[in-house]
Amino acid sequence: MAERFISERNLKFLLYGVFDAESLTRHPYFEQYDRKMFDMVLKAATELAEGLLQPNCQEMDRNPPELAGDQVKVHPSVRAMMKEFGMGGWIGATVPEGMGGEQLPHLVADNCYFIFAAANYSACAYAVLSAGVIHLLESFGSKELIDIYVPKILSGEWQGTMALTEPEAGSSLADITTMAEPADEGYYKIQGQKILISAGDHDAVENVVHLMLAKIKGAPPGVKGISLFVVPKKRIDKDRKLVPNDVVTSGIFHKLGYRGCPIVQLSMGDKNDCRGYLVGEPHNGLKYMFQMMNEERIAVGMGATAIASAAYYASLDYCKKRRQGRKVSEKDPARPQIPIIEHADVKRMLLFQRAVIEGSLSLLMQCSKYVDLQKVSSGVEKEQYNLLLEILTPVAKTYPSEMGILSISQGLQCFGGSGYCDDYPLEQYYRDARIHPIHEGTTGIQGIDLLGRKVLMKNGKALKLYVEEVQQTIASANDIPELKPYAEALEKALERLQNVTKHLLEVASRESAEMFLADATLYLEFFAVISIAWQWLLQGIYVQKGLKNNPTDSEADFLQGKFYTLRFFFAYELPKIKGLEERLRNTDGLTVEMEPDHFSD
Amino acid sequence: MAERFISERNLKFLLYGVFDAESLTRHPYFEQYDRKMFDMVLKAATELAEGLLQPNCQEMDRNPPELAGDQVKVHPSVRAMMKEFGMGGWIGATVPEGMGGEQLPHLVADNCYFIFAAANYSACAYAVLSAGVIHLLESFGSKELIDIYVPKILSGEWQGTMALTEPEAGSSLADITTMAEPADEGYYKIQGQKILISAGDHDAVENVVHLMLAKIKGAPPGVKGISLFVVPKKRIDKDRKLVPNDVVTSGIFHKLGYRGCPIVQLSMGDKNDCRGYLVGEPHNGLKYMFQMMNEERIAVGMGATAIASAAYYASLDYCKKRRQGRKVSEKDPARPQIPIIEHADVKRMLLFQRAVIEGSLSLLMQCSKYVDLQKVSSGVEKEQYNLLLEILTPVAKTYPSEMGILSISQGLQCFGGSGYCDDYPLEQYYRDARIHPIHEGTTGIQGIDLLGRKVLMKNGKALKLYVEEVQQTIASANDIPELKPYAEALEKALERLQNVTKHLLEVASRESAEMFLADATLYLEFFAVISIAWQWLLQGIYVQKGLKNNPTDSEADFLQGKFYTLRFFFAYELPKIKGLEERLRNTDGLTVEMEPDHFSD
Repeated sequence: MAERFISERNLKFLLYGVFDAESLTRHPYFEQYDRKMFDMVLKAATELAEGLLQPNCQEMDRNPPELAGDQVKVHPSVRAMMKEFGMGGWIGATVPEGMGGEQLPHLVADNCYFIFAAANYSACAYAVLSAGVIHLLESFGSKELIDIYVPKILSGEWQGTMALTEPEAGSSLADITTMAEPADEGYYKIQGQKILISAGDHDAVENVVHLMLAKIKGAPPGVKGISLFVVPKKRIDKDRKLVPNDVVTSGIFHKLGYRGCPIVQLSMGDKNDCRGYLVGEPHNGLKYMFQMMNEERIAVGMGATAIASAAYYASLDYCKKRRQGRKVSEKDPARPQIPIIEHADVKRMLLFQRAVIEGSLSLLMQCSKYVDLQKVSSGVEKEQYNLLLEILTPVAKTYPSEMGILSISQGLQCFGGSGYCDDYPLEQYYRDARIHPIHEGTTGIQGIDLLGRKVLMKNGKALKLYVEEVQQTIASANDIPELKPYAEALEKALERLQNVTKHLLEVASRESAEMFLADATLYLEFFAVISIAWQWLLQGIYVQKGLKNNPTDSEADFLQGKFYTLRFFFAYELPKIKGLEERLRNTDGLTVEMEPDHFSD
Repeated sequence: MAERFISERNLKFLLYGVFDAESLTRHPYFEQYDRKMFDMVLKAATELAEGLLQPNCQEMDRNPPELAGDQVKVHPSVRAMMKEFGMGGWIGATVPEGMGGEQLPHLVADNCYFIFAAANYSACAYAVLSAGVIHLLESFGSKELIDIYVPKILSGEWQGTMALTEPEAGSSLADITTMAEPADEGYYKIQGQKILISAGDHDAVENVVHLMLAKIKGAPPGVKGISLFVVPKKRIDKDRKLVPNDVVTSGIFHKLGYRGCPIVQLSMGDKNDCRGYLVGEPHNGLKYMFQMMNEERIAVGMGATAIASAAYYASLDYCKKRRQGRKVSEKDPARPQIPIIEHADVKRMLLFQRAVIEGSLSLLMQCSKYVDLQKVSSGVEKEQYNLLLEILTPVAKTYPSEMGILSISQGLQCFGGSGYCDDYPLEQYYRDARIHPIHEGTTGIQGIDLLGRKVLMKNGKALKLYVEEVQQTIASANDIPELKPYAEALEKALERLQNVTKHLLEVASRESAEMFLADATLYLEFFAVISIAWQWLLQGIYVQKGLKNNPTDSEADFLQGKFYTLRFFFAYELPKIKGLEERLRNTDGLTVEMEPDHFSD
């Protein structure tokens, strides 16, 4: 039997309780669905995860992709997975029915991706990348591009990717040098190099379709000169046959983890025969790409949470079974050893994991719901959901990524020496998860995005809306006696957030942008801890409702456990904002003024 | 040329400046040494590290030990290393000359181990384990045992190990079941299993000598019934030949990192022919073993700091060379990209690493100096150094281990996607370092050791002595205007430490031991942050002296950089104690009262 990697009960608690997925079906766009159908979708996702994804997770890690000639060979199970992702409607889960998709709410579809990623993160990445490509073509691609590419990617026959990074342009996309020269026939000739492209080539599909950033010859410098192209590995010739498109896989990266999915280097136009097809208008490429990037950022947060979830359930299982030591107060060594889950410090390590995972998942579902509500609303309302998403995206990407690593590390620690050995899956999870603070924009980039862009955008409107959302939760929680102390703590924390933000905005107007953004990463951490506290308080409301609603014993245990975890977050994690606030208020410019030479010795 | 993995300048700043190694040579025990000789020793260590250890570091990781039949085969370079460790006097560095050692101060010898571990942690482990075995035999072994085993281990021909852990007894040593039955001939027949034994078998030596915990038949239960034995893989028969001693390597563990050194499972007495030789008195084994364990705990802290040092210099090098992006205030994308070391957030990541590494190294040297002073002193003074060592050992083991992981993670982050790939050494360091919070007593065990044993010992005398040491540094720093703000901050922090400790002792007397120790791990973290702040202030005194003493430009850069790092620690790291204090004062018993069932769902 497969090891447990998620909690179905927690998932449904969030989906139907906290985020009321059923309410979405009142909107015409989702009216074909009901709760029963959602349940069936989740069940199907779980079956795929348990039956195919999880059983190959370790196998794929131990037999990583290799480059044979110029073809990347991946684990044979990936072919079956691509088929399932396609035929099962998973790649097109949120794609409109008119385009061949399932038109599911993101709230439900993202939960399925969560299940997939918890079972096998690398496997899930193939599907999520393909889905992102379709969504982007749906938004900005011509009918012709859609007709050619969407059905094949949707079915899992072709792989979709995003191709941004170059040797000299990682965090600084302004500096890409891949060139596109217009040809008379309506396409562009592409020439350049891309590196670190996930799923950038593999033999489980017939073709790979890159959404690629490049500069049209003569374009303005910097980000304003970036355009977006579809660049397939194989293009369709006049006879409707697939022929090579001069995209060569010139290298493969050997990685710490995430080994089930290849990351490759691509070389385009070595023979001057690589064709790219413009998406949308010239020079607007980065703007378009941001749709996919934002979607992938949320997916990264989800992936990080998912791996942490698998690590948590593995460690929980171990802590229940493993007997070691006795209660501190037990002096008789002749008494039997106790399961380590009875030790306070072990409970602390488990609670830490649960607090991070269930708090993160809640925030991610909050984002998914905003995506859905944005889709079915219009005007001011639509803009509001959009702004809430904008401000929460760097948080939902980064908190799970950074804290997921620590969560998994605590899971590993629960195993002691066994956690360090590959008899247990923890060491793999520990390696897999380390990618998340890096890809789709590093933590440093996310910090600058939050403080330097999102907090300032539309004159602070996104932040204002966010504060209102949190205040609404505080108001509801204040009516529940068991939650009052936590509502008050969050209220104070929210005030701290507003005051620290005000202080930093004063720094921005008084001093340099450099000074303003020097500790943006810490600001993001500060903001994120408060956001997760918000999500715990929100969950608390439904916990208390549930406890008052005649729960079964097992439900009561779950809800009590959730309440302990809420208390844990407020008692162990929220206090961290104090130290962060002290630093954020101390704008001494230490890291601005220090010279590179001071690092020499 | 070898990559840089340590800072010689920093090492000498600490060794000769802060800790005044020369002063030790005034004691008769060390009078044969002078600074010039210390320098030669360090130079020889560096040559060995650069010439043999570091060039094989990656190789040993990629070709890990394997069990062939019942013999573990390690990388061929290990044989040369064992020879060098032996012939160069490194295994016997601190062993008295009368026993064939070098009689070096620990302060100097530990620095050599630091250099070795930074070059190749796995390699260093072989030598450190052998050294620990010799030290323990020196203290508690009979002349006969010493005569047989010490010369061979000293020369690197035989390997020494510590064999404690069993399948059902890891953190709970009270529960070991390996049995020793007295035989008439003066030895014991050993029967049992040991797991996770570092360097427990390999083909780079002729023989492996285990210091093994076992229970003599009929011994009292628990830790009071544990005895210590020498159990060699091969024993010397009547003809003075090495013959098998019925110690079989029954398994090898495949590990996340630390792959250059085997960790094995041993089976003793399958043929009822395994002989063990008692060390010291029966039933006192754990007490004896603690000498070696404490020594190895300091060595673990040193190893963690060393790997973090190698990671830091690799990331520093990368940050100086890698060009990416422009200053936040630079709007012209046509300007060239800048080295990433010029970005404030990158400087923050580098400063974090440096603060952890140089702070940890300073604390470790502080401990080494206590070891030396304890050796050359007597009476009350000796006891004082001993108590200071006792209270600092869990701190010096844990802070570098836990923070070393985060430090290396930040180093990896500096590389972006490249850090995740094995073209750079960061991914290996990230894997290697994860062992440290686990072996030689997990972080949880260290927390309980600090709060439940060391803080209480001799009626709080160890803590009192520690506080006095810190206060002495504060007093000296208070006389230096540049350090006054930091001296004041540390003074306040020290008061917090005393008050929190008092609060916890009240909990101990008012409530259960369980409640008292529930957050011992957090108490250790709290204690450790303050200890590292102490070491930074102590370094600050010598920084300011150095700056006033006509430094060269390059010395001034180093010292200014150190002062920035001191400021960084006080501005970014010390504030973390606020959140920790809030939790430590909130003794709500959350993790004590929560039931295992609350984790179900």
